[in-house]
Amino acid sequence: MLNSDLQIQRFIDSTNLKANASYEDIDSLCTTAAMYQFAAVCINPFYVQYAAEFLFGTNVNICSVVGFPLGANIFKNKILETEYLLKNKCNEIDMVINISQLMNKNYDYVQKEIEQIANLCHSENAITKVIIETCLLSESQKIDMCKIVSQSGADYIKTSTGFSLSGATKEDIRLFRNYLDKSVKIKAAGGIKDLKSTLEFIKLGAKRIGTSNGKNIIDELIKEAE
Amino acid sequence: MLNSDLQIQRFIDSTNLKANASYEDIDSLCTTAAMYQFAAVCINPFYVQYAAEFLFGTNVNICSVVGFPLGANIFKNKILETEYLLKNKCNEIDMVINISQLMNKNYDYVQKEIEQIANLCHSENAITKVIIETCLLSESQKIDMCKIVSQSGADYIKTSTGFSLSGATKEDIRLFRNYLDKSVKIKAAGGIKDLKSTLEFIKLGAKRIGTSNGKNIIDELIKEAE
Repeated sequence: MLNSDLQIQRFIDSTNLKANASYEDIDSLCTTAAMYQFAAVCINPFYVQYAAEFLFGTNVNICSVVGFPLGANIFKNKILETEYLLKNKCNEIDMVINISQLMNKNYDYVQKEIEQIANLCHSENAITKVIIETCLLSESQKIDMCKIVSQSGADYIKTSTGFSLSGATKEDIRLFRNYLDKSVKIKAAGGIKDLKSTLEFIKLGAKRIGTSNGKNIIDELIKEAE
Repeated sequence: MLNSDLQIQRFIDSTNLKANASYEDIDSLCTTAAMYQFAAVCINPFYVQYAAEFLFGTNVNICSVVGFPLGANIFKNKILETEYLLKNKCNEIDMVINISQLMNKNYDYVQKEIEQIANLCHSENAITKVIIETCLLSESQKIDMCKIVSQSGADYIKTSTGFSLSGATKEDIRLFRNYLDKSVKIKAAGGIKDLKSTLEFIKLGAKRIGTSNGKNIIDELIKEAE
């Protein structure tokens, strides 16, 4: 598999969502992202304005997070967070669903939250990824979420925050592809650290890979090609 | 040590900050808190209104979290979250500092965020606890935070979110007591699960214990007294 065909770097959301990320860390993340032409950098809201200036004029998108990582904020606060991010040149928003309301079987609430955030994003030509935190859900809840995300107008479903019990699994990607509308793409995130698993997730249908190890993954690929 | 002297239950912030907490879980948390007379229940913003109604007329405070657990939200969003919580009968707010800005040595930013949230809380007769996430800080950063919290007018310093690498340590409580102004109290949280460690932290000077195991801790105490 040649990278020239696949353009694996364009699948990568290069991620630093650490609570203690410094300007230096974000500089390094952005520099590498521009050099390797990653799809996006994924960072906390606090750094969005800074990263957007840093990456201005490149083809790297700015991705940030809403209700992250617990999803248990109030509705209005998630909306305000989204509005701020969009105003500050964020092109991609990874939102965490209200997992509690899924547990409470308040599907309408869960769907409305996604719909409103997706609508806001689309009005600013941004895309929305919906984090459902698979490790906390039963199989039937994952299937329910595939349906809800398909009906909500969001662009992606995303497996995990990377801050809960575990991350993306191949079984989840297969399940997503079975139950999602074809128009909804998949982002696999959490625990993806090397080229082998990156390629496996892409082969199963993931269109984005969230990883803090993007540079090493592409370096592995370059080394293999040599 | 007799509980009638110490009133250990009045040191406990009985906590459920899980992303997948259900109404049933919050019912159970609140019922036990009212029965055992815990100082507070500590819950995510989404459940504040519900818990405040549930516990109306009891002596259990409603504690919720701001910028939780990463602290990397924008300033304005933390303020809006605080205002919402206060409006919804939250008596105690556990805020996470902007840890990134501490790493960036922007102490003024860190202090201003704390000051504004503490002022807002005090204007509504609520108290503020400042989570510094000790496991991510060097010893000198912890000392710096003791000074900043002392100058900011906040009521408590709190060790940990319980969502990072590790929780409260006895060394940190000793360090806090050495460097904090006497007016600032200490909340130890993260990994405190039994009566023995609860008593140890209290003996070292902690005035609140954040734990998801409050019921078992008091049950242990009752059993010992029998």
